[in-house]
Amino acid sequence: MHHHTDGPAAPAASAPAAPADSTAADVAAALEAAAGAAPALADLLPRERADLLRRVADAVDADTDALVGLAAEETHLPEARLRGEVGRTTFQLRRFAAVLDEGAYLEAVVDTADPAWPVGPRPDLRRVLEPLGPVVVFGASNFPFAFSVLGGDTASALAAGCPVVVKAHPGHPRLSARTGAIADRALRAAGAPEGTFALLFGEEAGRLAVTHPAARAVGFTGSIRGGRALHDLAAARPEPIPFYGELGSVNPVFVTRAAAEARAAEILSGFAGSFTLGAGQFCTKPGLLFLPASVSLEPLVDAVRASAPAALLNERVAAGFGGGVAALTGHPATTVLVEGTVDGDGAASAGWAPTLAATTVTDLLAHADVLMEECFGPAALVVSYADESELLPVAEALPGQLTATVHAEDTPQERPFAAALTARLRDRAGRLLWNGWPTGVSVTDAMHHGGPYPASTSALHTSVGATAIRRFLRPVTYQDMPHHLLPPALRDDNPLGIPRRVDGAAEPA
Amino acid sequence: MHHHTDGPAAPAASAPAAPADSTAADVAAALEAAAGAAPALADLLPRERADLLRRVADAVDADTDALVGLAAEETHLPEARLRGEVGRTTFQLRRFAAVLDEGAYLEAVVDTADPAWPVGPRPDLRRVLEPLGPVVVFGASNFPFAFSVLGGDTASALAAGCPVVVKAHPGHPRLSARTGAIADRALRAAGAPEGTFALLFGEEAGRLAVTHPAARAVGFTGSIRGGRALHDLAAARPEPIPFYGELGSVNPVFVTRAAAEARAAEILSGFAGSFTLGAGQFCTKPGLLFLPASVSLEPLVDAVRASAPAALLNERVAAGFGGGVAALTGHPATTVLVEGTVDGDGAASAGWAPTLAATTVTDLLAHADVLMEECFGPAALVVSYADESELLPVAEALPGQLTATVHAEDTPQERPFAAALTARLRDRAGRLLWNGWPTGVSVTDAMHHGGPYPASTSALHTSVGATAIRRFLRPVTYQDMPHHLLPPALRDDNPLGIPRRVDGAAEPA
Repeated sequence: MHHHTDGPAAPAASAPAAPADSTAADVAAALEAAAGAAPALADLLPRERADLLRRVADAVDADTDALVGLAAEETHLPEARLRGEVGRTTFQLRRFAAVLDEGAYLEAVVDTADPAWPVGPRPDLRRVLEPLGPVVVFGASNFPFAFSVLGGDTASALAAGCPVVVKAHPGHPRLSARTGAIADRALRAAGAPEGTFALLFGEEAGRLAVTHPAARAVGFTGSIRGGRALHDLAAARPEPIPFYGELGSVNPVFVTRAAAEARAAEILSGFAGSFTLGAGQFCTKPGLLFLPASVSLEPLVDAVRASAPAALLNERVAAGFGGGVAALTGHPATTVLVEGTVDGDGAASAGWAPTLAATTVTDLLAHADVLMEECFGPAALVVSYADESELLPVAEALPGQLTATVHAEDTPQERPFAAALTARLRDRAGRLLWNGWPTGVSVTDAMHHGGPYPASTSALHTSVGATAIRRFLRPVTYQDMPHHLLPPALRDDNPLGIPRRVDGAAEPA
Repeated sequence: MHHHTDGPAAPAASAPAAPADSTAADVAAALEAAAGAAPALADLLPRERADLLRRVADAVDADTDALVGLAAEETHLPEARLRGEVGRTTFQLRRFAAVLDEGAYLEAVVDTADPAWPVGPRPDLRRVLEPLGPVVVFGASNFPFAFSVLGGDTASALAAGCPVVVKAHPGHPRLSARTGAIADRALRAAGAPEGTFALLFGEEAGRLAVTHPAARAVGFTGSIRGGRALHDLAAARPEPIPFYGELGSVNPVFVTRAAAEARAAEILSGFAGSFTLGAGQFCTKPGLLFLPASVSLEPLVDAVRASAPAALLNERVAAGFGGGVAALTGHPATTVLVEGTVDGDGAASAGWAPTLAATTVTDLLAHADVLMEECFGPAALVVSYADESELLPVAEALPGQLTATVHAEDTPQERPFAAALTARLRDRAGRLLWNGWPTGVSVTDAMHHGGPYPASTSALHTSVGATAIRRFLRPVTYQDMPHHLLPPALRDDNPLGIPRRVDGAAEPA
């Protein structure tokens, strides 16, 4: 990274003072209140919790202007992007309300007594998913709404019926405090149990929350280093709890020779747009582009040079990016194609121009520890290959990824290679894209946002989409239980009107 | 424990020499072969894997006599019980074949492209569950068939499409070897990929398998101490993997005053039968019976005294049980009601008579570290209470349980208390029973065999029942992928004929 000035990154003059760090007593009070709220929150009917979520979404909508103003100050993200993100956040809250209304998420299964069951008389057995209990959520820096205080982790945990204790990200403390106050007020007004929601500040408070006996699960989006440390704390507890961490990903993009021949210009311009979008501050930023060595990189270099410098989220991201780019561009196995620059004093709020470097497949594999590492910000690495067959071993050697992308031609000639490449990538990534770009994670039923470690600490779960709720639910089976002690989801008359499996088949509506 | 002789438990004269411990090279070869088999096994159609499971089940059925003979020698379990367990084991294999045939387990979701999607144009997104990769399974001692080499963990992992490396339990090495050979032969004959199944022996081999880079998940049934050590190894790997351990449980039974007044004799006799069944060697053995102090224990004492002595599984179980009973009966807060005895030299194969002790709720809570600990074998503790209200705090203080049972009268007078007690127990246990006994775990869709730690290391998952397969599957989403590169489950024409969710609703059949 070539700074226009040589001094260390200084905090922006307008940086607000962060709310004071929460004390150990604050953490204990929040978790104990959450434990106290858990039974009543679990006992609400799904449609009652759906109402809570909609009330929270309405309250966020009503405060959009002030929230966006604060977010812009604290994160340097442009207003249009922030407004869009507020919309995504309230959409998520309302989507989980719809999930509750539908009720399929409860996975209700009824097996009535069967004296003729092949392995011995079967009692009446009824299974439903119930909330785990208090969930600790760590807000992310790069989505100050959609992955923060009222982001997907909080929405899915509340939907599941779990009280939530959020540890605010230090990148947007005032926004976090305001969002938390909105949530708290809306939940109280809607009659949620006391203790349903709390907000904590400070790293030590986060660690204390993860290790507090009342915590039953953790949701996290952030760095590999920070996430792994918290994962290890959660696993080492006297009673280990699930830690759902979405950590790091380089989101490789593979371009076949035929695709490069057919439409190199389009691919190179799409790549430049995707890796510099939002100043490269997305978990799904494509950090590696595999290209035939014969492709001219000039159009890509021109596009990157023409890309407008943009601010970074905060000083911590700026410092991390500076270090990552230095490691990338200073590595003997890379060539710098575009040297990123930063205006002025190198503060996060300055204009950061993107960086582009190049290497070969052989060098990438030989120096994977540095060159396959996520560099969070506007930087990417072009990896050239002489022969397409080089791509298969590199696909197998990838660490776990959120996404992997193939650009190829859909022709009979390409199919065998595309199939071989895709087969390897599906083992290494949570989402596979064809002729597209990984940035932009649509919130839909079919979305999976996760992947093998380190993309996620639990490859079985997603942090985006309807099934994110399952992270915070556990099955309970009731055996020969009288009707009045069964949860409504399991009663004979199906008072919730939800889809159920009864005696091995879908229950007729 | 009062032994008729004072010497240490000696190995039975007929104890077979265990197969040699697997070497580090054996472990590496098994896991590497499993990794090699994984893509081909994953690519089989569900009905092709169903065929593999049925072929394995047929092969087990065909060898039942020899298997039961070996099992009886090695585990001292009665033949009728072992024959029943073989039936349960092949039933499980065939049930997972049926799960594959139905295909709902794939959770296929198709969201077609939607330019009008509220948070921005939605690409074509299709999600399906795919196998995690090689699974390491630790066989249990107490179900030498149903939770061992070809038990539920192996059946569900193979069904999911994951190669399996089993670490044999040292309690039945020759049976494990024979079962493993049957599996290997049947899988090869059915055309399963080379490396689909392997069998290892020895504790160190088990640890090496859990930490081998190719292992993607672990299934385990056994002790808290052993399971926790392996859990910690799995969590501390450079790439952590899920560890599904079913560990320990005391399976408390709560008897209300009204139930005791109405049918003490029936309850006491049922309890004696349940905790001595199979010499108390079940994960679901009820170890604690909460009773009003006013109930006469004489019928219980008589029933326990009349219970026939039985052999224990192996010398390790005998030694552990001896220690556990000594801690229980020697504890200052307990009174011995029936002192268990053991015939002869105290070998596992000798006759072990059951032990019954008593304490109070107050003492149980004060000495929970010893008195709430599982004592694996024919021993139980009666916990007397003066007032039913004492039961609520003790229900809250329980460690995580596989089961919790309430004996109460289904009358308007009882309902409020039964509801309060059940509400607390559902947070602490995976299965709640009413007026029944927890031993006997029916294999059905609605069964949940798991619970909060230490009952299980993952409260979200079960080791029995159809949903056990989900432990070994992870979601993958395909974005804008050409038809020929999609897995069959996600193609437009639904060639597998499975239930799917398409654009937010069940796809018409």
